[in-house]
Amino acid sequence: MVKINTIDGGVCAATGFFADGIHIGLKKEGAKDLAFIYSDTLCSIASVFTTNKMTAAPIRHFRAKGDFEGNFVLINSKNANAMTGQAGIDDIDEVLLALERTFEQITHPVMSSTGVIGVRLPKAKIIEGAKKIDLSKRDGESASEAIMTTDTFNKQIAFEVIPEEGKPFRIGAMAKGAGMINPAMATMLCFITTDAAVDKATMQSLLDECIHTTFNAASVDGDTSTNDTVLLMANGKSGAFHAEAFKEALEQIMLFLAKEMVRDGEGATKLVTYKVTGAVNAKEAEIAAKALSNSLLVKTALYGEDPNWGRIASTVGASGVMCDEAFLSIWFDEVCVYKKGELLFDEKLEPLAAAVMKKAAFTIHCDIGLQDGEFTAYGCDLGHEYVKINADYRT
Amino acid sequence: MVKINTIDGGVCAATGFFADGIHIGLKKEGAKDLAFIYSDTLCSIASVFTTNKMTAAPIRHFRAKGDFEGNFVLINSKNANAMTGQAGIDDIDEVLLALERTFEQITHPVMSSTGVIGVRLPKAKIIEGAKKIDLSKRDGESASEAIMTTDTFNKQIAFEVIPEEGKPFRIGAMAKGAGMINPAMATMLCFITTDAAVDKATMQSLLDECIHTTFNAASVDGDTSTNDTVLLMANGKSGAFHAEAFKEALEQIMLFLAKEMVRDGEGATKLVTYKVTGAVNAKEAEIAAKALSNSLLVKTALYGEDPNWGRIASTVGASGVMCDEAFLSIWFDEVCVYKKGELLFDEKLEPLAAAVMKKAAFTIHCDIGLQDGEFTAYGCDLGHEYVKINADYRT
Repeated sequence: MVKINTIDGGVCAATGFFADGIHIGLKKEGAKDLAFIYSDTLCSIASVFTTNKMTAAPIRHFRAKGDFEGNFVLINSKNANAMTGQAGIDDIDEVLLALERTFEQITHPVMSSTGVIGVRLPKAKIIEGAKKIDLSKRDGESASEAIMTTDTFNKQIAFEVIPEEGKPFRIGAMAKGAGMINPAMATMLCFITTDAAVDKATMQSLLDECIHTTFNAASVDGDTSTNDTVLLMANGKSGAFHAEAFKEALEQIMLFLAKEMVRDGEGATKLVTYKVTGAVNAKEAEIAAKALSNSLLVKTALYGEDPNWGRIASTVGASGVMCDEAFLSIWFDEVCVYKKGELLFDEKLEPLAAAVMKKAAFTIHCDIGLQDGEFTAYGCDLGHEYVKINADYRT
Repeated sequence: MVKINTIDGGVCAATGFFADGIHIGLKKEGAKDLAFIYSDTLCSIASVFTTNKMTAAPIRHFRAKGDFEGNFVLINSKNANAMTGQAGIDDIDEVLLALERTFEQITHPVMSSTGVIGVRLPKAKIIEGAKKIDLSKRDGESASEAIMTTDTFNKQIAFEVIPEEGKPFRIGAMAKGAGMINPAMATMLCFITTDAAVDKATMQSLLDECIHTTFNAASVDGDTSTNDTVLLMANGKSGAFHAEAFKEALEQIMLFLAKEMVRDGEGATKLVTYKVTGAVNAKEAEIAAKALSNSLLVKTALYGEDPNWGRIASTVGASGVMCDEAFLSIWFDEVCVYKKGELLFDEKLEPLAAAVMKKAAFTIHCDIGLQDGEFTAYGCDLGHEYVKINADYRT
């Protein structure tokens, strides 16, 4: 049995990792807006990026580097460096070259950005500001604050992992994202650091596997951004590796951060788990679960704490998956509101269902009743704050 | 050249058609809640229904009748008779049987419903209320009011169609729908009546053709309801038919009503036309146009009158269609904000783009710049009213 202990430190929890977040004038009123992660030895890096065809410059820049080991990531908020063409990529080259000149310890640095689309990177400010970086800092908290955009709280976590056999290792992470979060990755950045001695190929395949049930199962608004990035950096300093334990820790970290992002969804007041079972296969269960987590009518009913199960049924039907009202059943937590064609909803049941909906977190379970396809997605409600935040994001 | 004159009368404009809307106690405070359309001779009926798998009882009931000619449609608001199983279908049989007993002129009546899902039809109220129907009434206006749910205005139109050769004929229609309107049909009901002498097969194929660029190109919130229905009834009384003129009139009527529905979208303040050109084919243009009309981030930016063209680009990229920022161009009406990789947006351009966004109706044109695939979709903004209306719909 693997033992997983939550520890402090976020992205600095693993041996050899340093990080900090500082203010360089991109955000107003002294808020932190530039973060870095640095490892004092070279790292293998695994990555997953957005599926958006309008890929932002930092992602194109990263991909153009080909296969490499590196030890530094620079992250700015307030500007996405997206839709900026070759000029946007050249800007990154300039920023990173300046960094390498200032800090000789830095090898193969990469950059990550989040913020407004279609505005050139304020590179002079970033080059000047980055000179203030202190590579000896171990302040994961500040780093996780500097990457926030419309996030209302910073998101980080770290584990010490003790496999049944073999030496312990550490893994930590930070993430940002509150809007444009959707089933196919979105304006979310996530940086995971570990001192496990894991090779790049193993790391990449575990990352790909865990993405599906974690970040890609989470949705705030169904929009997919130009900048989504998950980077996993391993410096091997613990000398330890245990595949099963590593996968379990990685999945737990990613699921925790995915749920944190949904909980912090723009204007969200509730975290809802959509469990779909009984679909003809896993893919159809996924389609139905994601349709539920993205339906405006479901999301507004959640916000209104209205146990309008008819919208749940209608959304499953609209998703196009095989289903029939005679086999469908719906639960709000343990309260069954519709069972295989039977209208259970009455004056007694309604307050029970309504009580579930008042909770900050609960599960809507749809059993399609046909075969054994299952998927679980995570979503939130949509309220006035979402409209307020997004109606005037740029100002 | 066909001449099309707008005339009064809505669904009663065509010869031989009668309609009315009355209050029978489903809605509060005396609001009309039951409508009928009656033709004094039998009609051919063409139909298009929702793609939702959880098809409402009225649609199942209609389909079960097979091929038939009829002369009466009864429409109630406030209750969708959806997710009600066989009992819901039996309820319709009972209501319609009672109607046939009361009015011997009625042959093969059908029913249509809109409102809350998952509650049995208040059939006693409807049977009792329907006795008050006066088949000699020609009040299309009242009929179009009785079918409203969250609509803020009633929707009807009628044309006199004068082909270059041959006799004139008339066509009129009413529709309802303000939420759950989406690219694949939604809680929208539309009833079209004509005295043209058109056979059922021709009527059905013209209806199928026109749906694609009208109702199915319109979106309020991307949700597809259990009850969507378009019925086209032709009694042939004019003795006239001209295929080209008929198609043109039908398409104009459907496009007018589709746009009226979007303009009346729940909480909508703007009607936006999304014109996508230059896609690799028409299907990809349609995917991109519908992605734009359904994007929460685009819709909230519209509401905020924020010319955030980056969200337009990002949404096209996220839709998965072939595209590249180097070939893409974006216009807000005549104002080009992004041209094939060039960032045009500056202090001079922003107020021009912002001025377009303040209009009640405007066009966002995305030229993908690859091939000649085109599609035009219609959408609206999403504001606080949408949240308010949908957070507590059932109460």
